[in-house]
Amino acid sequence: MTGTEPRGAAVMTAAQTPTPDGVRDAVRRLAARVVTTPVVRNDELDRLAGARLWLKAECLQIGGSFKMRGALLAVGRLADAGTAGVLAQSTGNHAIAVARAAREMGVPATVVLPTDIAPGKLRQIRSTGAEVLLAGTTLAERRTVLSQVRRTRGLDVVDPYEDPDVVAGQGSATAEMLAQVRAAGGRLDAIVLPVGGGSAVAGGCLATDGEDVLVVAAEPAAVPALTEALRAGHPVTVRSRPTIADGLRPDRIGQLPFALARGRVADVVTVPEADIANALCVTLMQARLLIEPAAATALAAALGLASRLGDRCRDIGVLLSGGNVDTGVVARLLAAHQG
Amino acid sequence: MTGTEPRGAAVMTAAQTPTPDGVRDAVRRLAARVVTTPVVRNDELDRLAGARLWLKAECLQIGGSFKMRGALLAVGRLADAGTAGVLAQSTGNHAIAVARAAREMGVPATVVLPTDIAPGKLRQIRSTGAEVLLAGTTLAERRTVLSQVRRTRGLDVVDPYEDPDVVAGQGSATAEMLAQVRAAGGRLDAIVLPVGGGSAVAGGCLATDGEDVLVVAAEPAAVPALTEALRAGHPVTVRSRPTIADGLRPDRIGQLPFALARGRVADVVTVPEADIANALCVTLMQARLLIEPAAATALAAALGLASRLGDRCRDIGVLLSGGNVDTGVVARLLAAHQG
Repeated sequence: MTGTEPRGAAVMTAAQTPTPDGVRDAVRRLAARVVTTPVVRNDELDRLAGARLWLKAECLQIGGSFKMRGALLAVGRLADAGTAGVLAQSTGNHAIAVARAAREMGVPATVVLPTDIAPGKLRQIRSTGAEVLLAGTTLAERRTVLSQVRRTRGLDVVDPYEDPDVVAGQGSATAEMLAQVRAAGGRLDAIVLPVGGGSAVAGGCLATDGEDVLVVAAEPAAVPALTEALRAGHPVTVRSRPTIADGLRPDRIGQLPFALARGRVADVVTVPEADIANALCVTLMQARLLIEPAAATALAAALGLASRLGDRCRDIGVLLSGGNVDTGVVARLLAAHQG
Repeated sequence: MTGTEPRGAAVMTAAQTPTPDGVRDAVRRLAARVVTTPVVRNDELDRLAGARLWLKAECLQIGGSFKMRGALLAVGRLADAGTAGVLAQSTGNHAIAVARAAREMGVPATVVLPTDIAPGKLRQIRSTGAEVLLAGTTLAERRTVLSQVRRTRGLDVVDPYEDPDVVAGQGSATAEMLAQVRAAGGRLDAIVLPVGGGSAVAGGCLATDGEDVLVVAAEPAAVPALTEALRAGHPVTVRSRPTIADGLRPDRIGQLPFALARGRVADVVTVPEADIANALCVTLMQARLLIEPAAATALAAALGLASRLGDRCRDIGVLLSGGNVDTGVVARLLAAHQG
């Protein structure tokens, strides 16, 4: 495998498919390079959920999201192979992670972002020195620009949903959570993962391989990409409505995440916008953690899970995937929450 | 020592004086009963500070503040001695901690609070079932009511600043921070502790006994109780102005904290209100931790410490003492911060 081949489902071979062993390996390789974020417990959230919640606080991760994990592995592999530069499309967090990892390794980075990217995410990316290209608001528009740049400039793509290192790296967050809960004497009945393009769910499915734990995916009701894919039997581009969960705006789930999720995900919760906003506010005010709306989508699903699935859900792990959210958004949500 | 004697500097004997050994003992006794809160690092705050900040996130502690530590030890001692009930005065967090510890141990609790207590703190206290008495806005007013209740009802007082178990317990937060920084390969040049009544500073002085680390106290410029006490050579009641740092409103430092701070504290930073507000907002948006204004007072002092003390301050530990703050306050501060 060299660093100059295009990545993606089309060129994936068996050797490139991420595996549970790949996730275990990712945990080891990342141990000294990422923050072992805490798993936070909170009485008040437990009371609201009617269950014990174990919150994996990846909002405290370097770069403000769990995506740093996959980016370090994938960019590291390309840097070792002597890449001339890395290229990624993203709604924000994958781009932050790739840009930070590339800066750390002295590799040029170019990222393709939506025009409606959260301003704070854009600032973080620009501060790394990465080249920024803005391209529409849909996944398809970003992919078109990405393909052009890849063809004309020979950069190496770090795909946010299909790259095996990215998926294994993202899975290390779930693997770490499982180990931390066990070390604290707990045992999870379910884990809740937010789903946009699908890397959290893909990694989570691999990390929970062989474990007796329900895997639950949470997506905004406004962008039901996994729900529709499961209904159709394959990834489909959905008609999306506006959502504050900017990290979950991809309107089509990745091929690899879908393949992994199909046989493993026990339940998909589609979360209304009001519930996302409420979950962000209660996590902030009760658990004192700032999470972004994508992570709040998972927390909102977890708050309703015990009443949805009953006694099977006494202990629920939640991937609080990130905390990159703009000041104005938080101020507005809190003001509404208070009123 | 029985559980029925009044507590306070007046009746303290040598055996009751907290010691560095007492803090080490507190760390051991509390290990399985409190959260070992993480020490959080953040690039952006480091950049703002011009130093490496190590943030001891006691906002993630049970009850939302480090005061749970001392309360568990002190209430535990009284419960073991068969107390009929515990009594405390507080601006909020000590009362939350005493009320929670008492509930845990099946002991009745009565707390004397200021009329301007943060509403969220009051809600937390009431939710424990503790009896609440409101008494003016000053420390003297609360102490008058406390004395009456103690005399007439024979309850055992848990003093927030003079009780040796409370001070040793609060010191365990600093001791833990020092150990965690060492375990991460770091070495602190200074620690910054917020000062109101003084238990954080008292505990911090004991926890750093024999360590080559500067102890810096941070107080609101509006309530310069330690600054004035050091100037006078003894605790004095200061004329205070309004401050958002409700946890640091005691207008007089405790006798024991003063005695410990006098020979150990290297610097006292008096923090303007605008800097407290700014520190709360940047900690929230950059480090994704919700801290209350008292903790933000310490963070604000830390942000200016490298330029104040120069090269002696490359690594600074900050006690983020708590995260009990009202939704409306955060919404208002963020809206102003954004503007």
